[in-house]
Amino acid sequence: MAVQVAVVGSGAEHVQRAEEVGRLLAERGCVVVTGGLGEVMAAAARGAKAAGGTTIGILPGEQRRGGNEWLDYEVVTGTGHARNLAVAASGDAVIAVGGAWGTLAEIAYASLLGRRVVILEPGPVVEGIPRARTPEEAVELALEILH
Amino acid sequence: MAVQVAVVGSGAEHVQRAEEVGRLLAERGCVVVTGGLGEVMAAAARGAKAAGGTTIGILPGEQRRGGNEWLDYEVVTGTGHARNLAVAASGDAVIAVGGAWGTLAEIAYASLLGRRVVILEPGPVVEGIPRARTPEEAVELALEILH
Amino acid sequence: MAVQVAVVGSGAEHVQRAEEVGRLLAERGCVVVTGGLGEVMAAAARGAKAAGGTTIGILPGEQRRGGNEWLDYEVVTGTGHARNLAVAASGDAVIAVGGAWGTLAEIAYASLLGRRVVILEPGPVVEGIPRARTPEEAVELALEILH
Amino acid sequence: MAVQVAVVGSGAEHVQRAEEVGRLLAERGCVVVTGGLGEVMAAAARGAKAAGGTTIGILPGEQRRGGNEWLDYEVVTGTGHARNLAVAASGDAVIAVGGAWGTLAEIAYASLLGRRVVILEPGPVVEGIPRARTPEEAVELALEILH
Repeated sequence: MAVQVAVVGSGAEHVQRAEEVGRLLAERGCVVVTGGLGEVMAAAARGAKAAGGTTIGILPGEQRRGGNEWLDYEVVTGTGHARNLAVAASGDAVIAVGGAWGTLAEIAYASLLGRRVVILEPGPVVEGIPRARTPEEAVELALEILH
Repeated sequence: MAVQVAVVGSGAEHVQRAEEVGRLLAERGCVVVTGGLGEVMAAAARGAKAAGGTTIGILPGEQRRGGNEWLDYEVVTGTGHARNLAVAASGDAVIAVGGAWGTLAEIAYASLLGRRVVILEPGPVVEGIPRARTPEEAVELALEILH
Repeated sequence: MAVQVAVVGSGAEHVQRAEEVGRLLAERGCVVVTGGLGEVMAAAARGAKAAGGTTIGILPGEQRRGGNEWLDYEVVTGTGHARNLAVAASGDAVIAVGGAWGTLAEIAYASLLGRRVVILEPGPVVEGIPRARTPEEAVELALEILH
Repeated sequence: MAVQVAVVGSGAEHVQRAEEVGRLLAERGCVVVTGGLGEVMAAAARGAKAAGGTTIGILPGEQRRGGNEWLDYEVVTGTGHARNLAVAASGDAVIAVGGAWGTLAEIAYASLLGRRVVILEPGPVVEGIPRARTPEEAVELALEILH
């Protein structure tokens, strides 16, 4: 069973790094899981697809439409922001790229459930969560304890 | 984007038909979505994999372990029976095979969200939901309005 | 701790009976729990308040506004139709008055969790669920196993 | 309709302050909403009851039993840690007392939904969230924008 890594975050200024994270994860054979919407979520999926990877979007709404165009599979939760728990829980590891309050909820949930979490600089400061300076380092840190 | 069909239900006496439903869906190129656990859910996924298909399990618990062995991807919701909404919503169509109260919740949710629902005989009687006598007919009825 | 009874359902043609159910429950000292919105939900809460009872609305949205005016307390779930599980689970017993697909999901969930469920005529036909012809009988049947 | 304030947090070392927060909120006429379990949640409810207030517990499990003994009403969500969204959303304001990852998720969700959030010292450091040194100050800060 392939390793699943959730990429969480938001912010238009972070899409390039998110895309790079998605690409690197796909190159390592990881499935990229996201919240399925735009900006960081779309960029991570786009990067993964560019590298031939597989992408899953876990959507907050009640319909498949609304997911970005780089998703292979869409899980339609219908539970709004509560789907953040599913995004966090569905990653064997979680990488945060940028992000606001919703991302902080995902970081908290992933930590609560014992998932490895890595915050890519710049990003929210959360005590106890390791930080990476580059997409490469983020992917490295995320995967090192899974092997 | 591939058509996603949710197969819902339970009951050890229904696994053969569920496996056949999974196989037929995979042969038609559909992704098989289930609740990820045993009996009907496992059989549908097993059938889909036997035909070279793709399977997604939407799990009620907080960890990937617990999903059956025929899942390609696992969405870990952490929301218990509320994940039934996600299972129902993630299918462009939903096929019910056997089943008890949890299945009835999924049938209700799928109908509420406007998904095509088909009940394979024998199964719960729900007013307004079309019924199929064979796995072939169930798949036929499920897919006819999607084309 | 007071007995909590969930009143579920929908349909403008059922509000009179729902109001009567709410009134009778309040007279028996029960807290009335609903999904917090209109029609049957509003009527049950209105009936309970008219009899000096207490009402809780479990709302699908993300804000308190949107709840009907007869609620003493509002739980804001933010999880859309998944809040139906919370409505069903929060009743020691559940009475269905009219209703469509969402109500069927609540009946299914309540049964799954071992809650006493009663359907007030006319209402959806669900195998194994007792039916009542009058609000008095519905309340009687709902409460008899709790004493 | 009474103001509802959610008190979130955990940690046995914080119960005295949580109890004081609950007491002060009840004296101000606020309904105290919590996650319904032990430590900070139980203490806040206990404090509110000691001052004649009203308490609601929003439980993660599927049964009413499990809630602490100072709850007037129990909402049984059945959705595990996803109920943290409901706890956060059900407060017109949210006060965090101590706490670990689950509390951080609640702080994040409350902020996401535009609720006033106050962290009582000592507690997690979250950028942009005002901090209070005493229970009195926490209640003051929580309520000042609601009037």
